[in-house]
Amino acid sequence: MPFDHYHIIESTLREGEQFSTAAFSTGEKLEIAGLLDAFGVEMIEMTSPVVSPQSEADIRAVVGAGLNTRILTHVRCHRDDALRALDTGVHGLDIVIGTSPLLMQHSHGKSIQQIIDTASEVLTLVRAQAPDIILRFSTEDTFRSRESDLLRVYLAVADLGVVNRLGVADTVGVALPQQVYAMVNQLVRLTGLDVEFHGHNDSGSAIANACAALDGGATHVDTTVLGIGERNGITPLGGLIARLYTLDRAYVQKYRLDLLPIIDQRVAELCGIEIPFSNYITGSNAFCHKAGIHAKAVLGDPSTYEIIQPQDFGLNRQVPIGHRLTGWNGVRERALVLGLDLDEATLRALTQDIKRQADVRPLALDEIDLLLHGAARQRYER
Amino acid sequence: MPFDHYHIIESTLREGEQFSTAAFSTGEKLEIAGLLDAFGVEMIEMTSPVVSPQSEADIRAVVGAGLNTRILTHVRCHRDDALRALDTGVHGLDIVIGTSPLLMQHSHGKSIQQIIDTASEVLTLVRAQAPDIILRFSTEDTFRSRESDLLRVYLAVADLGVVNRLGVADTVGVALPQQVYAMVNQLVRLTGLDVEFHGHNDSGSAIANACAALDGGATHVDTTVLGIGERNGITPLGGLIARLYTLDRAYVQKYRLDLLPIIDQRVAELCGIEIPFSNYITGSNAFCHKAGIHAKAVLGDPSTYEIIQPQDFGLNRQVPIGHRLTGWNGVRERALVLGLDLDEATLRALTQDIKRQADVRPLALDEIDLLLHGAARQRYER
Repeated sequence: MPFDHYHIIESTLREGEQFSTAAFSTGEKLEIAGLLDAFGVEMIEMTSPVVSPQSEADIRAVVGAGLNTRILTHVRCHRDDALRALDTGVHGLDIVIGTSPLLMQHSHGKSIQQIIDTASEVLTLVRAQAPDIILRFSTEDTFRSRESDLLRVYLAVADLGVVNRLGVADTVGVALPQQVYAMVNQLVRLTGLDVEFHGHNDSGSAIANACAALDGGATHVDTTVLGIGERNGITPLGGLIARLYTLDRAYVQKYRLDLLPIIDQRVAELCGIEIPFSNYITGSNAFCHKAGIHAKAVLGDPSTYEIIQPQDFGLNRQVPIGHRLTGWNGVRERALVLGLDLDEATLRALTQDIKRQADVRPLALDEIDLLLHGAARQRYER
Repeated sequence: MPFDHYHIIESTLREGEQFSTAAFSTGEKLEIAGLLDAFGVEMIEMTSPVVSPQSEADIRAVVGAGLNTRILTHVRCHRDDALRALDTGVHGLDIVIGTSPLLMQHSHGKSIQQIIDTASEVLTLVRAQAPDIILRFSTEDTFRSRESDLLRVYLAVADLGVVNRLGVADTVGVALPQQVYAMVNQLVRLTGLDVEFHGHNDSGSAIANACAALDGGATHVDTTVLGIGERNGITPLGGLIARLYTLDRAYVQKYRLDLLPIIDQRVAELCGIEIPFSNYITGSNAFCHKAGIHAKAVLGDPSTYEIIQPQDFGLNRQVPIGHRLTGWNGVRERALVLGLDLDEATLRALTQDIKRQADVRPLALDEIDLLLHGAARQRYER
């Protein structure tokens, strides 16, 4: 199965730093890296040392922390950048260059042949200097590049025999899952190298695209915590976990799932943002069942309306009953919790009463409890 | 093209009401319906009148508002529910019944033959009573139902000759895009009827799945504003717009795109939630370009890193420069805005200074302006 042998490249400390409000201190980077390492991500990608003095020092600090996860840094396809990155002692270099006509014109001004020449020079140099380093080469804006250009570049790079992994990047979030599958699968077939997918979420397909990449034979997927990154971000760590879990829980068992809520909350705090209400797994309502029909079925068997078990993440489901969509099965469940044995006719009448009141304003649980206790007392007094 | 003739069934007033904190008053429902009508959605789906007295009155109120959009209500496959729905004067009935083994056991207790018999009775009755009503039949939990069961039910229903549209529903958010494509395409081929897709987002694929449904021949997609609904919700209206816009802007030109920010903000307010930082189009950072390389290219041509034009939605891009990832092209752009003509060497030195300072704490724009003015003054004084 394609989902049995994948690796997460967690890029909260690189792509995530490109999110508007992210400005992590050294201590915060060490804390985030430590949490991700405990969770079990295989690789952590950090901002290029060329960006600022602190960025360089932070790589050395995280490498020095002796985590199990491999530490990578993300650098432009420049000789000087690569040499400075090597000097930090990282375990791997993720080298990138734009190949779409727009980026060739506005980012670096090189032709395809010049891209091939530069990549050959830089990659060969890195491998000569660091025989054991993990070396990746990626194009940027892959899905707006000409396919013939991509193949010329990738095949020339693969032929060097010095890189471990090729990267494809949906830099502006435009790719469709079937396009990602086809591109990844083609590279796997043609080169036999590991393939990594990096996908932005502008059109809401970053998770589906990551899954399509793995289905096509990709070995590595880039994520960030909560998906933070340039613009509205990339494939979120928790979203990828949710996607793979729903296909087969065994695909995510290698990770410490109960740490996900802590990681999401901590990064949100550090960025001064809220976890989105609609977030995968850790959103405030991810396991909230409201409509009466849903509540009834979930009380019978949670898997009726739950494809993910909240307890695997140290979370709990909620079945609120003080609203106009409520049903009598949910109300009965609450009566049983309170130790009140009410007959079906009474419960149905109470439910209609709750609906009428909730049409004006939702009821809090203690208000419903008062109604239930009142009905039980009335029954006893009759 | 499959994306030329689709309709949005906007279900904020039905699925959206199943979101934890949603409890819309009659006035609020009229306001939301009015905004969605102005935006141009073709259909609005409302909560069943059976749910509560106010729910029934609200359907009558929205139908009475005389909007261009058609008003539907969503009812269980029950004779009495359907008759009460008909009585409200809605333009269409969306009838639904669970077909997965789990829902058959825990929701209604019927066998497949009993589902077919009930559906036949209810649908024939509705058509007899309302020859012109828009009538949809949908299974629930389609993607955990047995395919043979689904085909028995759909083919029997299609054979009645009384429904306009068949619905497929990814009720727990488990489907993959290729599964959605295959199921929708099969129904289109076998029945020739309109097909609707309703997809939950538990595994982050609701937008990609909606797109796959349209690709497979679906004519209708369910959305809610911000995706609100049971658990973490369904395909968001803005997310579907973003997805189709990135394929071809012409696919969404029939809608009043500049109303999307107002609609997202208003529904967030009414539910007491924040628009997610990562939201499509209207998230706080959807058009924010931070890394120096991105800023440089976007200043040259916005389409380098923007697949959606913010001005189509009445929004603007941001290119912050007071952070450690900044580049000298962004700093130059700010100097030009201030009317300061600084040479490249000065700008590069200033940029290094900003990076050093931002390594400790990001700089506000007025702090950068002070630095720029200082450099210009120094140059003049030399």
